[in-house]
Amino acid sequence: MTSELTNQHEEPIFDVAQIAHVEILSPTPKETIAFYTKMLGMEVVEQVEHQTYLRAYEDNYKYSLIVTEAEEAGLGHVAWRTTSPQALQRRVKALEESGRGTGWANDEYGHGPAYQFTTPDGHKMEILWEVEYYDCHTDKRSKLLSRSQKRPANGVPVRRLDHINLMSSNPAADTDFLVKTLGFKVREQIVDNDYVVGTWNSVSNLVHEIAIMQEPTGVKGKLHHVCYWYGVPQNLYDAADLLKDHDYFIEIPPNKHGVSQAFCMYAYEPGGNRVELFGDAGYLILDPDWKTLTWQMEDVPGNGDAWIGAAFPDSFWTYGTPAPAAVPIKAVAE
Amino acid sequence: MTSELTNQHEEPIFDVAQIAHVEILSPTPKETIAFYTKMLGMEVVEQVEHQTYLRAYEDNYKYSLIVTEAEEAGLGHVAWRTTSPQALQRRVKALEESGRGTGWANDEYGHGPAYQFTTPDGHKMEILWEVEYYDCHTDKRSKLLSRSQKRPANGVPVRRLDHINLMSSNPAADTDFLVKTLGFKVREQIVDNDYVVGTWNSVSNLVHEIAIMQEPTGVKGKLHHVCYWYGVPQNLYDAADLLKDHDYFIEIPPNKHGVSQAFCMYAYEPGGNRVELFGDAGYLILDPDWKTLTWQMEDVPGNGDAWIGAAFPDSFWTYGTPAPAAVPIKAVAE
Amino acid sequence: MTSELTNQHEEPIFDVAQIAHVEILSPTPKETIAFYTKMLGMEVVEQVEHQTYLRAYEDNYKYSLIVTEAEEAGLGHVAWRTTSPQALQRRVKALEESGRGTGWANDEYGHGPAYQFTTPDGHKMEILWEVEYYDCHTDKRSKLLSRSQKRPANGVPVRRLDHINLMSSNPAADTDFLVKTLGFKVREQIVDNDYVVGTWNSVSNLVHEIAIMQEPTGVKGKLHHVCYWYGVPQNLYDAADLLKDHDYFIEIPPNKHGVSQAFCMYAYEPGGNRVELFGDAGYLILDPDWKTLTWQMEDVPGNGDAWIGAAFPDSFWTYGTPAPAAVPIKAVAE
Amino acid sequence: MTSELTNQHEEPIFDVAQIAHVEILSPTPKETIAFYTKMLGMEVVEQVEHQTYLRAYEDNYKYSLIVTEAEEAGLGHVAWRTTSPQALQRRVKALEESGRGTGWANDEYGHGPAYQFTTPDGHKMEILWEVEYYDCHTDKRSKLLSRSQKRPANGVPVRRLDHINLMSSNPAADTDFLVKTLGFKVREQIVDNDYVVGTWNSVSNLVHEIAIMQEPTGVKGKLHHVCYWYGVPQNLYDAADLLKDHDYFIEIPPNKHGVSQAFCMYAYEPGGNRVELFGDAGYLILDPDWKTLTWQMEDVPGNGDAWIGAAFPDSFWTYGTPAPAAVPIKAVAE
Repeated sequence: MTSELTNQHEEPIFDVAQIAHVEILSPTPKETIAFYTKMLGMEVVEQVEHQTYLRAYEDNYKYSLIVTEAEEAGLGHVAWRTTSPQALQRRVKALEESGRGTGWANDEYGHGPAYQFTTPDGHKMEILWEVEYYDCHTDKRSKLLSRSQKRPANGVPVRRLDHINLMSSNPAADTDFLVKTLGFKVREQIVDNDYVVGTWNSVSNLVHEIAIMQEPTGVKGKLHHVCYWYGVPQNLYDAADLLKDHDYFIEIPPNKHGVSQAFCMYAYEPGGNRVELFGDAGYLILDPDWKTLTWQMEDVPGNGDAWIGAAFPDSFWTYGTPAPAAVPIKAVAE
Repeated sequence: MTSELTNQHEEPIFDVAQIAHVEILSPTPKETIAFYTKMLGMEVVEQVEHQTYLRAYEDNYKYSLIVTEAEEAGLGHVAWRTTSPQALQRRVKALEESGRGTGWANDEYGHGPAYQFTTPDGHKMEILWEVEYYDCHTDKRSKLLSRSQKRPANGVPVRRLDHINLMSSNPAADTDFLVKTLGFKVREQIVDNDYVVGTWNSVSNLVHEIAIMQEPTGVKGKLHHVCYWYGVPQNLYDAADLLKDHDYFIEIPPNKHGVSQAFCMYAYEPGGNRVELFGDAGYLILDPDWKTLTWQMEDVPGNGDAWIGAAFPDSFWTYGTPAPAAVPIKAVAE
Repeated sequence: MTSELTNQHEEPIFDVAQIAHVEILSPTPKETIAFYTKMLGMEVVEQVEHQTYLRAYEDNYKYSLIVTEAEEAGLGHVAWRTTSPQALQRRVKALEESGRGTGWANDEYGHGPAYQFTTPDGHKMEILWEVEYYDCHTDKRSKLLSRSQKRPANGVPVRRLDHINLMSSNPAADTDFLVKTLGFKVREQIVDNDYVVGTWNSVSNLVHEIAIMQEPTGVKGKLHHVCYWYGVPQNLYDAADLLKDHDYFIEIPPNKHGVSQAFCMYAYEPGGNRVELFGDAGYLILDPDWKTLTWQMEDVPGNGDAWIGAAFPDSFWTYGTPAPAAVPIKAVAE
Repeated sequence: MTSELTNQHEEPIFDVAQIAHVEILSPTPKETIAFYTKMLGMEVVEQVEHQTYLRAYEDNYKYSLIVTEAEEAGLGHVAWRTTSPQALQRRVKALEESGRGTGWANDEYGHGPAYQFTTPDGHKMEILWEVEYYDCHTDKRSKLLSRSQKRPANGVPVRRLDHINLMSSNPAADTDFLVKTLGFKVREQIVDNDYVVGTWNSVSNLVHEIAIMQEPTGVKGKLHHVCYWYGVPQNLYDAADLLKDHDYFIEIPPNKHGVSQAFCMYAYEPGGNRVELFGDAGYLILDPDWKTLTWQMEDVPGNGDAWIGAAFPDSFWTYGTPAPAAVPIKAVAE
């Protein structure tokens, strides 16, 4: 390859490292927290007024989930961590130039200064570098060095935050913003002829840290789901069995996705937000020159949604939070 | 954080993307190939004189394994792919400056120009950018877009190459070379007081693409093992069951590692090289500021080697290829 | 308990031990056999004219499946083995008295004299005591003493025959016949108010060796499915993945049944007969005084059919073989 | 087969149905109960003076485990349920004739009159027919009809009692007693030339409800282990992971047995008694004419003990309860 061609190759941006935490809104925070702690083995690390901070036992930072009391369910915000403080500055500059930045937040619990911004659709996000790591008392530590605390004895405990999925009135616009401003790469997408219905995007080797899916009524800024990870496909059956016996609503039972190939399942927590659980994270994208995989919408049912599983119900394509008042929240807490 | 502190933070090098392929040497290539094809479901894509090129069904490139006929078992070479052609140039420059480069190879099957070099211990490596992707006839394609070919019906088929583990007379020196010249990060290590016994190093979110372990007799350039990945822990029991019934030697049965947390097992292929199989890849390192985890050697048995499993046998710490003539090759092909 | 009450307790009949083999009919025997051998790892032990005898690698007897060429798919016959030769005589006597016996068959391949009979709905059955055990050449034997031959390296190999499910114009009548004449116990049943829609019946600790389900159009003597067993839930995903990639029709993906609690999935073999695969056999009935569990039909979808899984499609309740000409056989062989 | 030969066939005795419950002794009952409840999800149903009654969530009867406070760990007694009240009378008669009976117990919690007896080695046993079934409040019931109560949210919950393993100064004598007096069948055995080292015996389709193993020092009446069942192999890794993080002693990590083929693991509860956990129950013996499988002791390590797993440690063959004072109890409760 000549140096001419070499110089024409656009190098990837490696400035964003991972999803750091997610804030969800719940009209029934007590029930939502019971769901995450009793069923999914998460732990409350802090409670401040209307906000509760939770972690999974292999989350590295202090917390990965914030549950905020609000009138309606939905997305609070998503936080991204950069690969370095210099990378934070570069991304902040790009965000400022995009016009979507809203300024710095300097007094957040558990992390340093975060630059806040919104997607074109209005989803709130922030980007940061400094974080506080989780550190527990000696008797809670595991001898397994990569594990931040002992495996919990309650529920079927999730190990770490995995990704987020947002609904958008214009997935192409939101995706474009993530790609251009933050360096996300579109790993898989679903299109209806040329119209972009959904994109799965990552900055890491995961198939996605963030997916964007069409909100079919054009409502903006909705949450599709937050996903936690087990690493073991069989644990999905254990979790589903527990949730079902305790009267939580399972929207889609364990199956193997086509997109991402991950073993997954979906339930609704009592506040109404959809929760996804990953058995494994699917395949990893190690190829630095990965070309986006494109599914035609008509080929998706029974292949793209679930490669091994029944085609997903309509609710998967239509339900998000906040949900219209007419749609009853289907989860009944124990 | 002041810009002074910001500028002091050393940004990671993101130039190496992944392990592209591995070449192993076998005195009994026919039996070695039978092991990989009949037991592990791999496919031969090309055979040229004394070299056979094989792939797993979710390997993206033409092949991931080369089996070369030789007098003794051991490592042929390891190939790395960079994140861009510019990154290749940067790494080649660093390698040239290190004095360990040996020049370009331009006529390799399945990839473009590769710059060749050795580790301090003498292991042969190469680094490249251009690769040929696997493309199969329509009737071999899977509807699952991320899968390069249909799941094979033979053996318990592995999905992709995962990593390599080399034995070295001086793990610290080899590790240092990988870190400084290629941008590898030491994710976990085992030390005996201060002496580095083993390192697990990656450029991706995997805990390691390459491990370096002490060769206890001081012999240089040995191979510890090559690892292929299933993604599903249970498949290790299926593979072990098949291998055992077909008289292959299982050195260490399925267990969950402490280092990496991966579900794994070890067998010897008939040529004598150790083979590792991963059920899952363990935990992923998404934290951009990951601090190396350090195990003291005395704490390792029953914790670091196997978190859930018996302490590894001595052979794990002593056997590598080429093996001394006195050590009989333990695998008997069917 | 007084001896009066004791004497009133009706002791179970322990005369029938197990399902010994099943004969299915196929209009495309070559494709049917390819399905069972290449995908499910079964082995052909004998081929006589239009009949092929197959076995799974942990079947104790010579074979467990006969594939007979015929114009239409469907059930050939089911064979039961008694607990002793005396038990055979007792059951033959009961069958003769029932008027459903059709006489002895003395020259069958792989077993001794079998007394033939039909269910009220016309399904052909036979009962026997003497069988020929599978015995293989030394090099095919496994060191695992309970395993009759080495684990096959082809497909995702099933381990043994598990059960049969027949469709009937009158499930209550057929069930009654099995209970009174052969000593079957009704373990679980589905009723529509009082009308018996389906029964799951066994003579062993399994929840069922034979199920009887309502044929909704009143056609007699149909086959619903034959089931083979893996023992490991995860293997269902391996089998489904393989079948899907090789273009076989998966009617119902892996799920956990409510009835029996078994992990299961359903596919159609190319001849059109439905095939069930069990990951595990569900719970075992060790209680000697087990009371039949009764599901109301309206409670079944999403609970009885699949406890963890989507409610079964209509085809599960309507499709059986032979299928009406209007219903296309959905399996396309590779 | 002539009626002469028919009459010579010895018909099996079907009088004993299952293992009903086990009583173990513990010098630290509080810690023992914490182990079973917090780690293994069992529930205390009754506490009377020094006895605590526990159940697993799919045990049909009120309880399956009694923990009795005593100076030393070990076996309290084993209880068997017959297939009918008539069967109870037949077995009591046989036990009386054997001279090993010790009389009726009429006031036991949770079951009717039980006839008590001992094995030649002195292990206490009882046999009964009438039992009290578990019945819970509506809000604890599961919609899954075969499940007696909702899946617990604590620990990695076991589903039901599976079997017991006793150490004996003379395994052949104890086995013979079980066979002749109760109708047990020897399914697998380990011999040292002709000397019987261990037997695996059942009355059901399970490979064993009771195993007898040589106590190497000749001490009588010891307990080797009590086993609970999950039904899913992967759950053993979840249980082992939890136990390890909470500092319980894991004697043998998850592996697949040769004898029985069951996925299993062994730990010590804090009182010192060995606990086995079954992932699945292995293969089932449906063949009514099953011939005992015989392993030579020298072939057992790495094949009979663990088919897929490391050869068992010496402690497996030597440790039982009560343990000699010199042997420290290895479990440290959290």
